[in-house]
Amino acid sequence: MLRLYDSRLSGNAWKVRILLTQLGLPFERVTLDLAKGATSDPAFRAKSRFARVPVLELEDGRTIVESAAIMFYLAEGTPLLPDDRFLRAEVMSWLTFEQADLLRALALPRFYHLRGIGDQMAGRIADFQEAAYPALQKAEAWLSTHDWLVDERYTIADIGLFGYVSMAHQGGYEMQRFPSIDAWIARVKAQPGWVSLVEEAKA
Amino acid sequence: MLRLYDSRLSGNAWKVRILLTQLGLPFERVTLDLAKGATSDPAFRAKSRFARVPVLELEDGRTIVESAAIMFYLAEGTPLLPDDRFLRAEVMSWLTFEQADLLRALALPRFYHLRGIGDQMAGRIADFQEAAYPALQKAEAWLSTHDWLVDERYTIADIGLFGYVSMAHQGGYEMQRFPSIDAWIARVKAQPGWVSLVEEAKA
Repeated sequence: MLRLYDSRLSGNAWKVRILLTQLGLPFERVTLDLAKGATSDPAFRAKSRFARVPVLELEDGRTIVESAAIMFYLAEGTPLLPDDRFLRAEVMSWLTFEQADLLRALALPRFYHLRGIGDQMAGRIADFQEAAYPALQKAEAWLSTHDWLVDERYTIADIGLFGYVSMAHQGGYEMQRFPSIDAWIARVKAQPGWVSLVEEAKA
Repeated sequence: MLRLYDSRLSGNAWKVRILLTQLGLPFERVTLDLAKGATSDPAFRAKSRFARVPVLELEDGRTIVESAAIMFYLAEGTPLLPDDRFLRAEVMSWLTFEQADLLRALALPRFYHLRGIGDQMAGRIADFQEAAYPALQKAEAWLSTHDWLVDERYTIADIGLFGYVSMAHQGGYEMQRFPSIDAWIARVKAQPGWVSLVEEAKA
């Protein structure tokens, strides 16, 4: 069975979990406790050359790291990744844009706030926001005229952008500036098989 | 003919130019003057949804943005991108690692120094270096036991990591800390068809 190493709050690992669920692939979930330094453990480092989650372990024991690489691997041959060479490049362009321009700038302010050190890190958060607001505006512009990022249908590009963008407000981002992103987030969440980051409390 | 929009000093565009040359693909080069705001021009924005270089324009007028996406597109079916699904994921993992962990942290200090505002931006440069040194150490660890990043041969993963890493010293990084990276940079530069960022002065 596939095995996914994740952590409770990693947005990158969440993307992979959404995809695995939507593809109907059974997997074992191994949730690491990052606060206890689980990613520094030599046994984990042997699976993850970048010492972080997510890691997908295949049935033969080989591992794949980096959420975009894992998603491309898993989605191959499914409706969530186009076969067409140009459209695949489109998917990859959104995935690398998110990793280069948004990932750290959205994830780290969220992390600082969750750890209660948002005030202490205010200067760094301001630097991140200065860089990320224009990038969010580019996504907003695209989504103001498109329902989805690529080929007018839901693909792994949407999952890749969705992860941290949907949690950006937790890092102090004023997401009400971006109504088209907001509407797209609702469309992503409405996709069959979508799963929340943390399980909702049972009623 | 393929057309590459680049700028004189963009490392991401340089990667594409190295690849096009090594693949023997004829292309027209359109070098934008970023200081004059060329990427804000509406005609260019129509080609580049993220308003930056590189952009690859295909013969039918469609454009591909983001260096990793362009490289995957161009290298398809060539020795510079493995056919095997797992190895392709390995390539992508290095390309996204570079974009997420190194690109901005290496490129922006370099930019500040080239513009003569390195002292003014010292605090921000220190933040970038704090984040990027551990990432460089991960690449160093890999390259201390491997000649190349993927499949023990030269691929677009190497080109992707090479671009900004080879220029990191221009941003004040002490690259003598990383002897295995240094040796790998020499191997990349020795590949047939490699081209320098700026043409060397003719003797």
